[in-house]
Amino acid sequence: MRPASGDGRYILAAAVTLAELAMRIGCRVDGDETIDVRRVASLDDAGPGDVTFLHNPKYAARVSATRASAVIADDRLTDAPCAVLRSSNPYLAFAEAVAALTPPAVSLPGISPLASVAASATLAADVSIEPFACVGERARIGARVVIESHAVISADVTVGDDSVIRAQASIRAGTVLGARVHVQDGAVIGSDGFGFARRPDGSHQKIPQVGRVVIEDDVEVGALCAIDRPAVGETHIGAGTKIDNLVQIAHGVRIGRNVLMAAQSGVAGSTTLGDDVIMAGQSGAIGHIALGAGVKLGAKSVATKDVAPGEHVTGIPAVPVDEWRESVALVRRLPALRRVLTDLASRLEALEQRLK
Amino acid sequence: MRPASGDGRYILAAAVTLAELAMRIGCRVDGDETIDVRRVASLDDAGPGDVTFLHNPKYAARVSATRASAVIADDRLTDAPCAVLRSSNPYLAFAEAVAALTPPAVSLPGISPLASVAASATLAADVSIEPFACVGERARIGARVVIESHAVISADVTVGDDSVIRAQASIRAGTVLGARVHVQDGAVIGSDGFGFARRPDGSHQKIPQVGRVVIEDDVEVGALCAIDRPAVGETHIGAGTKIDNLVQIAHGVRIGRNVLMAAQSGVAGSTTLGDDVIMAGQSGAIGHIALGAGVKLGAKSVATKDVAPGEHVTGIPAVPVDEWRESVALVRRLPALRRVLTDLASRLEALEQRLK
Amino acid sequence: MRPASGDGRYILAAAVTLAELAMRIGCRVDGDETIDVRRVASLDDAGPGDVTFLHNPKYAARVSATRASAVIADDRLTDAPCAVLRSSNPYLAFAEAVAALTPPAVSLPGISPLASVAASATLAADVSIEPFACVGERARIGARVVIESHAVISADVTVGDDSVIRAQASIRAGTVLGARVHVQDGAVIGSDGFGFARRPDGSHQKIPQVGRVVIEDDVEVGALCAIDRPAVGETHIGAGTKIDNLVQIAHGVRIGRNVLMAAQSGVAGSTTLGDDVIMAGQSGAIGHIALGAGVKLGAKSVATKDVAPGEHVTGIPAVPVDEWRESVALVRRLPALRRVLTDLASRLEALEQRLK
Repeated sequence: MRPASGDGRYILAAAVTLAELAMRIGCRVDGDETIDVRRVASLDDAGPGDVTFLHNPKYAARVSATRASAVIADDRLTDAPCAVLRSSNPYLAFAEAVAALTPPAVSLPGISPLASVAASATLAADVSIEPFACVGERARIGARVVIESHAVISADVTVGDDSVIRAQASIRAGTVLGARVHVQDGAVIGSDGFGFARRPDGSHQKIPQVGRVVIEDDVEVGALCAIDRPAVGETHIGAGTKIDNLVQIAHGVRIGRNVLMAAQSGVAGSTTLGDDVIMAGQSGAIGHIALGAGVKLGAKSVATKDVAPGEHVTGIPAVPVDEWRESVALVRRLPALRRVLTDLASRLEALEQRLK
Repeated sequence: MRPASGDGRYILAAAVTLAELAMRIGCRVDGDETIDVRRVASLDDAGPGDVTFLHNPKYAARVSATRASAVIADDRLTDAPCAVLRSSNPYLAFAEAVAALTPPAVSLPGISPLASVAASATLAADVSIEPFACVGERARIGARVVIESHAVISADVTVGDDSVIRAQASIRAGTVLGARVHVQDGAVIGSDGFGFARRPDGSHQKIPQVGRVVIEDDVEVGALCAIDRPAVGETHIGAGTKIDNLVQIAHGVRIGRNVLMAAQSGVAGSTTLGDDVIMAGQSGAIGHIALGAGVKLGAKSVATKDVAPGEHVTGIPAVPVDEWRESVALVRRLPALRRVLTDLASRLEALEQRLK
Repeated sequence: MRPASGDGRYILAAAVTLAELAMRIGCRVDGDETIDVRRVASLDDAGPGDVTFLHNPKYAARVSATRASAVIADDRLTDAPCAVLRSSNPYLAFAEAVAALTPPAVSLPGISPLASVAASATLAADVSIEPFACVGERARIGARVVIESHAVISADVTVGDDSVIRAQASIRAGTVLGARVHVQDGAVIGSDGFGFARRPDGSHQKIPQVGRVVIEDDVEVGALCAIDRPAVGETHIGAGTKIDNLVQIAHGVRIGRNVLMAAQSGVAGSTTLGDDVIMAGQSGAIGHIALGAGVKLGAKSVATKDVAPGEHVTGIPAVPVDEWRESVALVRRLPALRRVLTDLASRLEALEQRLK
């Protein structure tokens, strides 16, 4: 797949018939498959010529009012005012429909004369480097990579084929990025880990952070994320992991494959996340613990110890989600419990008086 | 109003008489209105020639010790060692006094020869574009706009009159900014929403984020904020809304007018905030919910469901603030409640034994 | 000490004997001090020629399996399969060993012809200014300072000797940085404080933020931090303080010496932190309060009122850590307490019936 163009701009494809779209996104058509469609839009915004989608059953009632020409849905949708593109995974079909109807604008590859590229850097075929981007000594840039304006690729960095480094991202010395890695604007990869040793006088001596960050294929790093290098060894992110904006990944963290980290979450030093972990928004994990494969950590919660594979935990500190729900409910009932306690105490007192 | 200069530098105005300042900021003078003042300073720092202010009644006792030449205050201040500038809204009068006495240094408009401006971009009168800024194809830049160093205005962006885009901000393709919008350093507007569909093998397919971000007039976006574009439709921010630093606004969020979002707060996808909502520092709202007009969300809290207009909620999950206060107080009293419970249990046990 | 090179790259030193390393890092050698070592590595990764370290007693059992040539440890380590470098502060010795064996690559000082330096700026000896960096009018840059690519030093900024300003950091007008200050990539210092006064119509009037930020010697500012300037007076950070990534410091905050602020923590306006305060990850302090010297604030907690010197607090709102632990334990026991209460109620009821 061709990566997004350097300027993040998309174009509308020419109209296609519903039959052709259905074939490309793997759906079956219920209705007139000869009509033309041009665009994907939400249930409320869609009009004639648009394809919409029903992913969240919460919105099923709105389908009857849509003005779209077609809706992507699974077999549970029984009644629609337009053609239906049937899929067992409507959200995935929706993703493919957006890609089919709004391909990225193809930027012509080429090195801007306003970029700064070290003579010792090696660039594979069809690389795009925009104005004011910097590529450092001995950096190795893969085929079809896009390096946007003001991005900094420091010395000895490797960037795999088809990766996109967006504007103002900073990839510090020695970092290794795989293929199809997508780094959004302003992200910093390879910043110094927060490592200091206390001197006898109470001041802090910096531990040089001379390890490196390694990011495998197909990882997305959101805007304004910080991923630190460690003093020794590696900070490592597994293939297919997707990281939202403003996320902190500390030195020596190891993250598995296909992990999802939502915005403003953070992981402290040397902690490991297994494959398929999901960290919700504003959640955190303290240092030196392990979250097993498939763990889900709730929004705004903090894991403070190891979590077994597959567990769903939340709260501060994080506990199994059922336990957390019960605690929250009981805390809300504390005023009532206190009234019961007061009532019991006075009745017991009365009984004691009577029997004195 | 002339926007802040490109380099964020302010100059001191020449001295003015208290009478003139009072007229400009809409105050009444108690005391000698012929004296000269030059600067606004805090109660503790102010000296002769300075104007200070009493906004927070907590600090009223410090007025007697101030060395300022004048103090801005409301009618509750009965005793001051200097002239008093009376205002029913001292904080607003303070704001106006700072603006009157420290006007921004006016930067001469002009396009730096070190900037990169696409030939197809249109620039209105008196635009300033600093070194290394980039303006993309077909961008439309309004009158008197300042684009600081390293800011990136991508293709097809619109920037309204008198807006200021500070250093290293990135405004991605297709974004629309109104008039007098102020984007601070390093903010990213139009980054890709965090939208992925799970493939049958467990990996994540990116949903192209081809919608756009629209920001109305008089909005401030703090340093290092991320505002995502959605897959379809818009992320929308209403006029007069002010956003602090390091805030996350996800794809498809709709924010009303005059909203305040404090630092490190975040809103997940497709959530809506009514007019005049206040989100305190480090707070969050999960996706697909609605906070009504005038809702206040407490520091470090998380809204997990719809909140009715005007409610003041806090906690994780957020509940009405009175309920939260009672819960916190009762949790702190849990050790005492447990002792009562233990005591009741032993007394009941004794009674039961006696009556056996 | 020579600051890290502009490109954040480190080189391996030639091999040294254990005797020489021991002398340089202040350790005593148990074992063969004639062997050569080249690198510092973790217990698990180390091989022949490497020095490893035992800092956390949790990992003591792993020493027996290490393949390292030497281990840095204190006297509690009684049995090792290799030489031991004895230190009463192994973590500090480890820091020094990393510095000894991996010195920063020395970048040749010089001003890139691709940088933009104002004619009125003054540069001391041996300054490095990389491509696309900007130095504004009247800025004063100390000796041996490194200003990396795309960093912006605005007008009237002072940068002390041996400081390093990394890529894409923005130091706004009037900021004062001491000696050996290290600002990581993308950090913003001197952004506008979040100060607005409400107008009668409900809209917000910006208070010009014309104060300044002053940062003393030996401070580290992490990647993507925001440190705001105030409307009047200063935001001030004391010598030796270390700040991790994505941290927010609001306008008018005063921070003492040798403070540690972990990632994603934040301090609201006008709050003060005494010397040696430690704020853990994702913690916060509301505005207008004081944390005394030596206060520790736990991960994800929020201080909502003054905290006495030396206290260790945590929770939302923060309370003494022992009290918090007891509350958490009791909340987890609430289901059991409720069962006890229900049991007591039914037994009391039975007693009352019997005695009726």
